[in-house]
Amino acid sequence: MQIAILVFDRFTALDAVGPYEVLSRLPGAEVVFTAESRGPVRAETGSLALVADAALDEVPRPDVVVVAGGPGQGACMAPGPVLSWLRAVDATSAHTTSVCTGSLLLAAAGLLVGRRATTHWLAIDQLADLGAIPVHERFVADGKYLTAAGVSAGMDMALSLADRIAGEQVARTIQLGLEYAPQPPHGVAPGCAATAAPAIVEGLRARRRQILT
Amino acid sequence: MQIAILVFDRFTALDAVGPYEVLSRLPGAEVVFTAESRGPVRAETGSLALVADAALDEVPRPDVVVVAGGPGQGACMAPGPVLSWLRAVDATSAHTTSVCTGSLLLAAAGLLVGRRATTHWLAIDQLADLGAIPVHERFVADGKYLTAAGVSAGMDMALSLADRIAGEQVARTIQLGLEYAPQPPHGVAPGCAATAAPAIVEGLRARRRQILT
Repeated sequence: MQIAILVFDRFTALDAVGPYEVLSRLPGAEVVFTAESRGPVRAETGSLALVADAALDEVPRPDVVVVAGGPGQGACMAPGPVLSWLRAVDATSAHTTSVCTGSLLLAAAGLLVGRRATTHWLAIDQLADLGAIPVHERFVADGKYLTAAGVSAGMDMALSLADRIAGEQVARTIQLGLEYAPQPPHGVAPGCAATAAPAIVEGLRARRRQILT
Repeated sequence: MQIAILVFDRFTALDAVGPYEVLSRLPGAEVVFTAESRGPVRAETGSLALVADAALDEVPRPDVVVVAGGPGQGACMAPGPVLSWLRAVDATSAHTTSVCTGSLLLAAAGLLVGRRATTHWLAIDQLADLGAIPVHERFVADGKYLTAAGVSAGMDMALSLADRIAGEQVARTIQLGLEYAPQPPHGVAPGCAATAAPAIVEGLRARRRQILT
């Protein structure tokens, strides 16, 4: 079972590494990080680089596709090798998945038309513009498509995928191996736009508007 | 504020990338991944490599030290450059921290003698052998030392550290940016040895014994 994780310049590292850490522990799994070309790919901060061990054309038929998100995703939205690859591999994949704004790439490739999907809370309106049905959930399954909310949601999505692929016992074993019993110091409420302090929600919205304009 | 994240051959990727994703968002933070020598460092699975942008001797005075864990940690426990570097940088660091079995490296460097600390639940007995006082908590603060439990606990530890360094408002803003409102599909109980199914706990213990002997 080959699991391809797509990364690109200015991706968000945890979007890719969260699911990697879960899915690489599936029995028989072979994970490969892939990008337009082989070699180090820098995350959005510039201070982390992850090595893509294979170029896109070296990964023609993965069983599972995981698409990371991040600020650099915008540059991949235009017609080009990333969207072509996504359409090609989706034709034979068993599961096509995304974390954070990775779902915008799936949508831009035309794979989420009329499908329920999610993304980072700050980007959710863009999903509708690309023909998907945006849903505010931690992760959303629609057929073989599994899309996760922002960054850290990739862990939960991947555990759910582990469950589908290998069963609940295996998923629970992976969860215990990763000691994934999260305890954010201020609880979970500050991590969700619906329950966080309004001033903090608005602060992040304003920062995003500033970046986009 | 320089934040040095120590990695080594066969580290656990999420141990390093969880805290990176949180701490790199602190105002004024400069994160640097460091290892014995510059270049790609392979995680335990072999399928992920992260680039160390600086060798240990190029990072002489970080303000914050984060030590990842992972199966390769054993090879760094003997007297050598890693333990020497840890002792040297700890002399001037404001915060010395670890995730998972990274705390065994801090302990082997003599930095946790008589201090409360934690690690991955499967390795907790080793902490006592190295002079620390083992505590079963998600993360443990003892003076400037902050140690996290297994793998995913690094996120919670890093948010707590963000809180100490930059205040609660900043920590909550980072948490919302990462949409860190975790929802493991089967809840948090399967992620903790005290609440997981006994058969799964014993299965992982048996696998570890097999690896160690």
